Amino acid sequence: MNTIREEVRIFCPATVANVNCGFDALGFALEGIGDEMVIRKVKTPGVTITKITGEELPMEAHKNVAGVSGLAMLEGINANFGIEIEIHKKIRAGSGIGSSSASAAGAVFGINQLLENPLDNLALTNYAMKGEALASGNEHADNVAPCVYGGTTLITGYNPLRIIALPPMDSIYVGILHPHIKIATKEARAILPKEVSLANAITQAQNLASFVASLYEWDKQLFADSLQDVLVEPHRKQLIPHFDTIKRISKEHNCIAFGISGSGPSLFSFAFAKADIDTYLSTSKAFYEEQGLAVDAYSSRISEHGCRVISP
Amino acid sequence: MNTIREEVRIFCPATVANVNCGFDALGFALEGIGDEMVIRKVKTPGVTITKITGEELPMEAHKNVAGVSGLAMLEGINANFGIEIEIHKKIRAGSGIGSSSASAAGAVFGINQLLENPLDNLALTNYAMKGEALASGNEHADNVAPCVYGGTTLITGYNPLRIIALPPMDSIYVGILHPHIKIATKEARAILPKEVSLANAITQAQNLASFVASLYEWDKQLFADSLQDVLVEPHRKQLIPHFDTIKRISKEHNCIAFGISGSGPSLFSFAFAKADIDTYLSTSKAFYEEQGLAVDAYSSRISEHGCRVISP
Repeated sequence: MNTIREEVRIFCPATVANVNCGFDALGFALEGIGDEMVIRKVKTPGVTITKITGEELPMEAHKNVAGVSGLAMLEGINANFGIEIEIHKKIRAGSGIGSSSASAAGAVFGINQLLENPLDNLALTNYAMKGEALASGNEHADNVAPCVYGGTTLITGYNPLRIIALPPMDSIYVGILHPHIKIATKEARAILPKEVSLANAITQAQNLASFVASLYEWDKQLFADSLQDVLVEPHRKQLIPHFDTIKRISKEHNCIAFGISGSGPSLFSFAFAKADIDTYLSTSKAFYEEQGLAVDAYSSRISEHGCRVISP
Repeated sequence: MNTIREEVRIFCPATVANVNCGFDALGFALEGIGDEMVIRKVKTPGVTITKITGEELPMEAHKNVAGVSGLAMLEGINANFGIEIEIHKKIRAGSGIGSSSASAAGAVFGINQLLENPLDNLALTNYAMKGEALASGNEHADNVAPCVYGGTTLITGYNPLRIIALPPMDSIYVGILHPHIKIATKEARAILPKEVSLANAITQAQNLASFVASLYEWDKQLFADSLQDVLVEPHRKQLIPHFDTIKRISKEHNCIAFGISGSGPSLFSFAFAKADIDTYLSTSKAFYEEQGLAVDAYSSRISEHGCRVISP
């Protein structure tokens, strides 16, 4: 009688990183938008990608984000077994809502499930960052952390990696607008200045600290006021067609925050009422389509769960 | 039968601003170190400074920090009376632990007491900033806010002024070391670069946000880790003789944080044990005195009270 699972099917949520004031620090998980993966324990050592649907991605484990993070974890725990991975992508690659992070986090979360969870979320995030590095060129955790932890996460340092799970943004509705353009993460990095004004650095620190305090206090006014980005948005917004127009539309529909998700091109927005997010999304979608630009629009909430088991 | 007081004697605490990661944003109030003031309601309009002990300071109201903030408040509330102020300085002017702020905050706190507290702490801080501007050349609230609110305060914005009273640092002991040198706030400002690296700006934001989260979670490790200053200390430490040596001594005595109080020259330090603060202070004081430099050393706690009434 062996109750240990040999296979697990999981859901890996899409995530929004940066979140205005939290460049390279904040991220949150979305509800209902995410990939599915199957992780299977096998005798053959290493990682074998057996199936990928929804996107064209490398089947070789060492070239695949899920493969690389899975391999890193198997090596790290001195596994005497291997895994097979099926990846069913629902998050479009390059959309800026954590497509690669979902694959990276899913692989390590799935292995941990098959082992009955010996590793904590911090250790899983560390392994998932190895996969993320394959996608973006450097190890960062602002998407993998919320994908593993769920909710809203703050990275407080990298040496060593340290992550705080912040209190929930209970009454927030999220709109995601994905204009179908390509932005290379590398290009989005290169566009940023090496230096910023001391005054803007102080404002950014005040805003991020205010955001954190607003969640602990659940102070809606402070929450809305803190969601400003003086460091990155002024440079990156030129990568997004009609950024200022969409931002204006978001304000006209009572959205309390608007910004670039990760390094784009997706745009996120917050509102206190679902109706506001829905009309903002339909108006913005119509505007983009008038300009001949295809977009996906999702209305969501913030998920308190990161990766989770669907079956068995 | 009139129970309204015509005179009030108050205690106005010394304060530490900046606190490593919170440049222009954080501050806290000290216990036991502070000025005394007497505020008296009189018929003659305006502010009259009737007595100053402990320091040589201007007696003309419009040249005196307490006078200027008192006048601003009387004007703001359309007072049909005036006040007399006695100032008994215990906090040395120019020591970097909020000497001018104590006077500025005390005047407005005292008037508010005489009126049975019609104004809230935010309004009082706004008036006190007018006096602070006389001392430092610009309106800032990082000392006056904790002097009014008590505890630890975070300034989250100036347009409009917004302040959060953070959760208490319950088990913290504070050491204040005041080497007797002069640092002009103006010089301490001028020494700062106009631009900082984006990487340091992000680190500062992460540290300030971590500090805030650490207080809400009372996570001692995160608290200690967050109290770093990558933006200001590297530039200002040259203004403090033997800064690196004193920092080393603080670490040798288990201090978890060390830094410049405000724009100096006082140095603050935190420890979890009173014995550590006491031996750090005596060792540092002995070191400075060997170098021929006079110092004051105070062991304190963080006061949950700002200005307070002593009598009647």
